[in-house]
Amino acid sequence: MLKGHQSWIFENRPVILATGTVVGPDEGQGPISEDFDIVHGDMTLGQKTWEKAEKALLEEAAQRALDNAGLTGGQVQFYIGGDLMNQIISNTFAARTLNMPYLGIFGACSTSMEGLALAAQLVDSGAAHYAMSGTCSHNCTAEKQFRYPTEYGSQKPPTAQYTVTGAAAAVLGRSGDGPVVTSATIGRIVDMGIKDPFNMGAAMAPAAVDTIQAHCRDLGREPGYYDLIVTGDLATVGYNIANELFKKHKFPIEQTTYNDCGLIIYDVDKQSVQAGGSGCACSATVTYAHLLKRIKNGELKRILVVATGALLSPLSFQQGESIPCIAHAVSIESGGLYA
Amino acid sequence: MLKGHQSWIFENRPVILATGTVVGPDEGQGPISEDFDIVHGDMTLGQKTWEKAEKALLEEAAQRALDNAGLTGGQVQFYIGGDLMNQIISNTFAARTLNMPYLGIFGACSTSMEGLALAAQLVDSGAAHYAMSGTCSHNCTAEKQFRYPTEYGSQKPPTAQYTVTGAAAAVLGRSGDGPVVTSATIGRIVDMGIKDPFNMGAAMAPAAVDTIQAHCRDLGREPGYYDLIVTGDLATVGYNIANELFKKHKFPIEQTTYNDCGLIIYDVDKQSVQAGGSGCACSATVTYAHLLKRIKNGELKRILVVATGALLSPLSFQQGESIPCIAHAVSIESGGLYA
Repeated sequence: MLKGHQSWIFENRPVILATGTVVGPDEGQGPISEDFDIVHGDMTLGQKTWEKAEKALLEEAAQRALDNAGLTGGQVQFYIGGDLMNQIISNTFAARTLNMPYLGIFGACSTSMEGLALAAQLVDSGAAHYAMSGTCSHNCTAEKQFRYPTEYGSQKPPTAQYTVTGAAAAVLGRSGDGPVVTSATIGRIVDMGIKDPFNMGAAMAPAAVDTIQAHCRDLGREPGYYDLIVTGDLATVGYNIANELFKKHKFPIEQTTYNDCGLIIYDVDKQSVQAGGSGCACSATVTYAHLLKRIKNGELKRILVVATGALLSPLSFQQGESIPCIAHAVSIESGGLYA
Repeated sequence: MLKGHQSWIFENRPVILATGTVVGPDEGQGPISEDFDIVHGDMTLGQKTWEKAEKALLEEAAQRALDNAGLTGGQVQFYIGGDLMNQIISNTFAARTLNMPYLGIFGACSTSMEGLALAAQLVDSGAAHYAMSGTCSHNCTAEKQFRYPTEYGSQKPPTAQYTVTGAAAAVLGRSGDGPVVTSATIGRIVDMGIKDPFNMGAAMAPAAVDTIQAHCRDLGREPGYYDLIVTGDLATVGYNIANELFKKHKFPIEQTTYNDCGLIIYDVDKQSVQAGGSGCACSATVTYAHLLKRIKNGELKRILVVATGALLSPLSFQQGESIPCIAHAVSIESGGLYA
């Protein structure tokens, strides 16, 4: 139910029954590689095109999530998903394979938490017994669509980010064993006039700060309520800007640990990833593989995941528009009964 | 709450408090032109690009819906919208102007009813006091993105459809004066292997039939429960195929009146629109302007709007994929107290 202006409290505490996470070779060489269900050594996955490879990543993640939940696709009422591709074809073609009623969404890299928030809302309100949310991204499809095909070998500035190759899906249910989704805050568009698509982190940081502050205001919470607040893919540049904004707004972020998924998935100093990770799969794979494991281990009890999205298109950029950004936040808490 | 496998019953009967509908010159020469709030004689709306014109259409429709509801943007919790443009930029940039918490969705031309279903679900379950759903399309942006710029003057086969230039938005609330949203059915992907993007109606018809049958099965209803069942944009070719499929499945569609928004918005015999209308704005403008007026007039008591979407992308087509289709159905009933 609604809490404050733009947040939901999930009183029935929907359970994340299972997840599936699949990544590519770069993510497999990063610091959290052991947490993923499947690591591919080949970015093509044996497919003829990058786009078909991205779809295959998502199909694997969704199937793994179903298997881990002990459910068949026919038992899950709704699949909610989106991705960066024009007309979100990766999710649509995967939804064709999954054969579930399908709600397509688009929030660029904020899609992961937009989908989890909606899935939790449906389960919490009794509109679904089970709902699945998923997303994916692929370094080569994103580079090809938004910048240049990687085969061109064009150079990028150090503020640019590296799109995660991967997919992740989560199955939610009304009851069961697993971490629980307790609240969500839906973001507004924040656009500070930045026009440089090689500096998405700077563009997205104000949106993340806006949503985190709205979340705390709506729920009457201090940031210290959480053991960890983690943004989606601000990477080095955006993470530093977010910290400056918190300071400027006198928001006591120091009460908690603040990190960014784009800095967790790669070793930014050692891997060739410019400022860090980005892409729909960045926050999704880090949350579902790494952070949920830390909740189950007892290392974390309450986290707030704030997925950030840069909602530009190549055409809006060409027409001189700035980059509208958004961030959606979902809180996940320890639910008990872990193996 | 969930009813059957893929449907929702809205027990609190969310009210469509107000709508805003805006169209271009071709729609203004069609048979229902008097029902629209605003008819533009100029497809550019005085904007520099077709894309900016499409965004302006949506901004006008949303503002008109708010004005008609007597609400300000700050009173509406969530804006839910999407469109055909890559990265749904028309909705994102309009949401920047509206400054409301924003849930981006994508269902191609099924977006209208995906958005209305989600908005109704949020209001019904207490996750929003007020929610707005909107969508838009523009003939020249769609032709440019999916086929050829209209300036090329390329020819189209008679099975092709004509994308509606327009936008529509609806504001939903928990109580008030207006027609009510009583149920929704979320569709599955149906793909019969059709690959011709100049014959979307044929590709989408089986998805529409699948969702209408699922709706009746889930709710234990005969089609005769409705005074009118209307598909989104099957146009002549798809409408005839849907009728054939109903006959083949022995589904008693003859109990009700069955029509298609793509055949309502234009005079298909007299206007140069090939098989009929299509685009996100087709079902949205026909429903919010024309059909709601007929409900308020007492001509119709219960209708089922089944918006259909062809979820291909130019790239999926180029890679030899067939066209995955979907349809989402929403029932709207007379709520009383009309002026």
